Amino acid sequence: MKALVFHGPGQSAWDSVPDPGIQEATDVIVRVDAVTICGTDLHILKGDVPEVRPGTVLGHEAVGEVVEVGSDVRTVRPGDRVLVSCITACGRCRFCRKASFGQCLGGGGWILGHRINGTQAEYVRVPHADLSVHALPGSVGSADAVLLADIFPTAYEVGVLNGRVQPGDTVVVVGAGPIGLAAIVTAGLFTPERIIAVDLAQTRLDAAKRLGADVIVDAGSGPEQLVADLTDGLGADVVIEAVGVPESFEMCTRMVRPGGHVANVGVHGKPATLHLEDLWIKNVTITTGLVDTSSTPMLLRMLAAGRLPTSSMATHTFPLDSMEEAYDVFSHAAGTGALKVVLGGQSHTALARTAPSPKE
Amino acid sequence: MKALVFHGPGQSAWDSVPDPGIQEATDVIVRVDAVTICGTDLHILKGDVPEVRPGTVLGHEAVGEVVEVGSDVRTVRPGDRVLVSCITACGRCRFCRKASFGQCLGGGGWILGHRINGTQAEYVRVPHADLSVHALPGSVGSADAVLLADIFPTAYEVGVLNGRVQPGDTVVVVGAGPIGLAAIVTAGLFTPERIIAVDLAQTRLDAAKRLGADVIVDAGSGPEQLVADLTDGLGADVVIEAVGVPESFEMCTRMVRPGGHVANVGVHGKPATLHLEDLWIKNVTITTGLVDTSSTPMLLRMLAAGRLPTSSMATHTFPLDSMEEAYDVFSHAAGTGALKVVLGGQSHTALARTAPSPKE
Repeated sequence: MKALVFHGPGQSAWDSVPDPGIQEATDVIVRVDAVTICGTDLHILKGDVPEVRPGTVLGHEAVGEVVEVGSDVRTVRPGDRVLVSCITACGRCRFCRKASFGQCLGGGGWILGHRINGTQAEYVRVPHADLSVHALPGSVGSADAVLLADIFPTAYEVGVLNGRVQPGDTVVVVGAGPIGLAAIVTAGLFTPERIIAVDLAQTRLDAAKRLGADVIVDAGSGPEQLVADLTDGLGADVVIEAVGVPESFEMCTRMVRPGGHVANVGVHGKPATLHLEDLWIKNVTITTGLVDTSSTPMLLRMLAAGRLPTSSMATHTFPLDSMEEAYDVFSHAAGTGALKVVLGGQSHTALARTAPSPKE
Repeated sequence: MKALVFHGPGQSAWDSVPDPGIQEATDVIVRVDAVTICGTDLHILKGDVPEVRPGTVLGHEAVGEVVEVGSDVRTVRPGDRVLVSCITACGRCRFCRKASFGQCLGGGGWILGHRINGTQAEYVRVPHADLSVHALPGSVGSADAVLLADIFPTAYEVGVLNGRVQPGDTVVVVGAGPIGLAAIVTAGLFTPERIIAVDLAQTRLDAAKRLGADVIVDAGSGPEQLVADLTDGLGADVVIEAVGVPESFEMCTRMVRPGGHVANVGVHGKPATLHLEDLWIKNVTITTGLVDTSSTPMLLRMLAAGRLPTSSMATHTFPLDSMEEAYDVFSHAAGTGALKVVLGGQSHTALARTAPSPKE
């Protein structure tokens, strides 16, 4: 088969590699229909994630069709169309038993395209399939569903739920890339009083406005003063960090009100300064997290019900074998305006429009 | 009257000053029976809390008798014995309506011995008395009750509740001074699997053991490895910071398990480094806070019921007019072994033992 193989920092190629096969009785093999590229993949290519060994197939988000199942798999069978979650879960360990699947101690967690071969390929082996793939309603297009493999549950769980967004809150989302935009959409599920989006790029701020931000502000134009002005000088109830650099995190801690929440979603490569000399007295809660994907079933239901606007997030689509071109467009987002690039998935979109699945 | 007056960094004296009088209809005047000294008072004397103006009477913890009430005070009357809480609360502002009294916007919060004259005096004026003093059961000795003015609710709310201690948890308390010891006692209310106390002083570790720590460890003898060894390498469920220096806070963030909580209680004068490059993926929750004293009524009931061991916390007692000597002993705790020093309170202790109040 063909797959996007990591060959060390700065090097990757759409190579011919052996097809994956069942290794454990709990595995499935999925033929990939739609796949996307995550900012984390770019981090890996830069060499920021050293545990990824050269030779690994990248990617941790996909939609596809189950073509083979191990003997212990109970929840899906060949022919099922599934979402491949970025998080694999054994379901049995201490953390899985509390739905902290991202911290799975039984060989799961974030492993696809990280510790084992991933989804940017024609086929992918998914371990612990019962808890790691989700059968898809036929009404849901692959190019939409693939956004629920990572960015929507991440934004919702690590941003909105950890930040404890409540009705009436002022919510600031710093960084309006795909994760920040998904945070804006899913924060909206709680009907905050206002959502303020902060970014440096006007194209992203425009997307934020389309997806539900009430106020948009350029990161260089005094977002802290704006937040203070809108909140009687107190600060925001919830601030979601969706960038991943120290300056952005530190700005978030300055924009939160006493008793408020800073939910870090960004992937950081460097430490930040925590101004405890100011914060110790402010009753602030700061959270970090890798997604658990415990919300994925709910988000899929919402997508199927038409209550989760995902489509304006995918700015560029490619056939699956244009992987290298897609990486190029995604990694130059400032110039191309790319938010999320989706590869494949076109066939099912058309199919879904004409022939609803018998499961419906 | 006599009072301990701050005269600028490094300078204070037991001076004669004018008696306080009612200024607002919601004020009471309390004749001080017992008072104590807080680590924060030492910070003020060092000049770390610049908003305290020279001429201010220090102290934010006391037990005494109401001698005068403003015309709008409803919950206490002259002759009542009361706890003066370190937090004053208007009861009407946005934060008070959510029991976030520490962040009161109506002229309350931590104001005694900070923005207005405090409790280390023969008399103290307490604003917003209805929510800022608590009538005491007669069975409770003043020298015990005064520990509920600040350290017990602070340790419980900012340490134990913010840290979300649960039955079966491994709880680490870093710093076994008065706040850390009160955190050990109140963490015990949730029956954790084990409480590990970390400190540099053997006398404090001994006190920790007496008050409920299951494991004590010298801060210089590899507490991080010990915590890892006791938790299958995962780390503690809850780590409570009760020191207030960057090194201690940073150690706490290394000792917490994935999905665990770091509750900062220490008063910090400097920023710390937050290693987001390690923590972003760990689902860690970090909280800070000034106490709200919303738990004070419950803690008083527990004290009256004999379910809150406070007495071994007060290592030194003095008459009220030995304030300067008491400061000397408390500020040289490393040599004197002082935990909490209590001034006054002796008369009521004897009274309580022989004549329960008619309110009981």
